[in-house]
Amino acid sequence: MADRQALILEAAVRVIARRGVRGLRVEDLAAEAGVSTALIYYHFKDRAGLVQRTLAFVNDRAVGYTEEALEGAEDARDALLRLLLSELQDTDLVRENSIAWGELRASAVFDDGLRANLVESTRDWVRDAAELVAASRAAGLAASRVDPLDAAERLTALVEGLSERWLSGGLTVDRARELLAGAVDAELGPRP
Amino acid sequence: MADRQALILEAAVRVIARRGVRGLRVEDLAAEAGVSTALIYYHFKDRAGLVQRTLAFVNDRAVGYTEEALEGAEDARDALLRLLLSELQDTDLVRENSIAWGELRASAVFDDGLRANLVESTRDWVRDAAELVAASRAAGLAASRVDPLDAAERLTALVEGLSERWLSGGLTVDRARELLAGAVDAELGPRP
Repeated sequence: MADRQALILEAAVRVIARRGVRGLRVEDLAAEAGVSTALIYYHFKDRAGLVQRTLAFVNDRAVGYTEEALEGAEDARDALLRLLLSELQDTDLVRENSIAWGELRASAVFDDGLRANLVESTRDWVRDAAELVAASRAAGLAASRVDPLDAAERLTALVEGLSERWLSGGLTVDRARELLAGAVDAELGPRP
Repeated sequence: MADRQALILEAAVRVIARRGVRGLRVEDLAAEAGVSTALIYYHFKDRAGLVQRTLAFVNDRAVGYTEEALEGAEDARDALLRLLLSELQDTDLVRENSIAWGELRASAVFDDGLRANLVESTRDWVRDAAELVAASRAAGLAASRVDPLDAAERLTALVEGLSERWLSGGLTVDRARELLAGAVDAELGPRP
């Protein structure tokens, strides 16, 4: 991606994390990114194009820190836990990215264009988690009764629910992580 | 509650479910409710007061259909499942209420006033669920290892995650309900 585009998208995430999707005005974004509004329209066509590309950018960043978290995983079950916990980290990057993701997801209820991209990103994430559940089962690290897709769909939806409670002040990040680790044990059965 | 206030709050939920919290303008709400903007300011003081009272109203309505769902429950575990499933019903009322709840929850990230009320409503809901988990355990309908508060916190957060996927088109309501029933089995252990 051209540097200029990345710069604009980084600024868009900051603005969304601060004021919400509906608080994202192209004029304010131009000021935040230090570029002209014309350049934004040149790269992203219109506000809808900008919002869709920002969703893809937020998703790519999440994939980035997820992959980082997987490094050094001891086995498939540990990798699954790391994959899920990587969304609940009290760093500026994860907090900002998660607030923006929550906002874009809530907006998708009202925005057909966003919805298709959101469904696709979520499906990729669920599929990655399901592969790790299946690998855990194959390695004897999960009960044989476990359905990988069901467990993955629930665990990722739980991450979103816990993340929103954390970001809106209902849970500490440590409590959210503890609950999530407990969910993996409930879904997969105790570690043998 | 005075009829006029209820009328305004019902209209506020409709507007939020259609255009989001940031799409709620007092002028539009007045038109939707068929009242003057002055009457809205008289009853709710300002826009912030209106949004907070709308959150309480949405919560009261959810408590209403939850209590309805509990009627005829066979035992504590069945009551728990009904309590949770009542948030995933494809009726106009539940859909509208859930979209508004998701919107208000996402807005609470940016709004300190909303946040305190949201945390309190969520705590009441988690406590009700925890009591039913504890009663299930006492009746031998849940494994003795189950921690009622942890299980309740996870199951309610999962309802929110599944609800948002349903409302943004990622899951059918039937699939969301099936996943939720599976989560109760994973958390409490198989029904004896």
